[in-house]
Amino acid sequence: MTLPPPVLSVTVTLPEWVASVVDFDAPYLTDRERMRLAIRLSRENVERAAGGPFGAAVFERVSGRLVAVGVNEVVPMGNSTLHAEMVAIQCAERRVRSYSLHESRVEHDLFTSCAPCAMCLGATLWSGVTRLVAAADREDAERAAFDEGPVFAESYAYLASRGITVVRGFLREEAVEVIELYRRTGGVAYNG
Amino acid sequence: MTLPPPVLSVTVTLPEWVASVVDFDAPYLTDRERMRLAIRLSRENVERAAGGPFGAAVFERVSGRLVAVGVNEVVPMGNSTLHAEMVAIQCAERRVRSYSLHESRVEHDLFTSCAPCAMCLGATLWSGVTRLVAAADREDAERAAFDEGPVFAESYAYLASRGITVVRGFLREEAVEVIELYRRTGGVAYNG
Repeated sequence: MTLPPPVLSVTVTLPEWVASVVDFDAPYLTDRERMRLAIRLSRENVERAAGGPFGAAVFERVSGRLVAVGVNEVVPMGNSTLHAEMVAIQCAERRVRSYSLHESRVEHDLFTSCAPCAMCLGATLWSGVTRLVAAADREDAERAAFDEGPVFAESYAYLASRGITVVRGFLREEAVEVIELYRRTGGVAYNG
Repeated sequence: MTLPPPVLSVTVTLPEWVASVVDFDAPYLTDRERMRLAIRLSRENVERAAGGPFGAAVFERVSGRLVAVGVNEVVPMGNSTLHAEMVAIQCAERRVRSYSLHESRVEHDLFTSCAPCAMCLGATLWSGVTRLVAAADREDAERAAFDEGPVFAESYAYLASRGITVVRGFLREEAVEVIELYRRTGGVAYNG
């Protein structure tokens, strides 16, 4: 079987609609506002048939400034690593121009519409955020046939041991609605 | 503090020297040849001061065709997600034009110069490769102050339960030499 030429560069681009949906100038002062943005992104992603039912965003904890957002782009970009958290983390680090948000000496929160899979949990650790807030939980994703991979109680304990505060199940019902919408409308569980 | 404008796109590019070091036309028929390529990439990356002491490559199992390569680019690209495995997986998927190598109906091997961290172990699962071969092990990376994150015996069992064969410690000494070289020459342990 022939293959196209070797690939030595990959570009990860957020969908065009993101710029019209997200207000990067407004401060997001409460956890509720921050999570609602992550869930809004997940919902838009489903309604626009742009990818999986997941959204994420990185904020400066104290100022409430929105640093970066992400949506799931696995299927449209043909890239299994492009979970919402991975996209948000990469855009945030590029924006602060460092391989770790911690280097900026400002504390960052990662809000995600669903508890991270094994890959994203690892990436959370390397990103330099010091707080992770998730809405839907593992079993909500599994109900839509998504696999979350090897994430255990010890995995969260590991994050805690590295100074990362974790909150799970925050506004869970609102995020679950979006996952259910995706399932009802025939969305692909690309890794299940 | 001011920030640059929001980032909505990130490009991941392999270093230019990769094209001159890697032969994409030769078949890599044995595990030894495949791992030597991953280790060669890790060594070139250190000797050229291009990033962390890690290399990876994706092969078609039966034909021995090299599909994609990766090197660690965390520090030079300012992107904590760019471990060698992540780069190789993304380039491989882009080349076969699918979000899963499994969709191509050809079995793929991922060779990596060091056992995957938590993020890369999760990504291995989503990539669609069905065999993972690693050289250096967790404690070798830790000796150079790298953190591998929450990877447990159960994590590997999870991969096995999903049909992924894992081989660890293959040509370990050759890969450890490179990690030690990195440490001796003052390389940054960006996540330790």
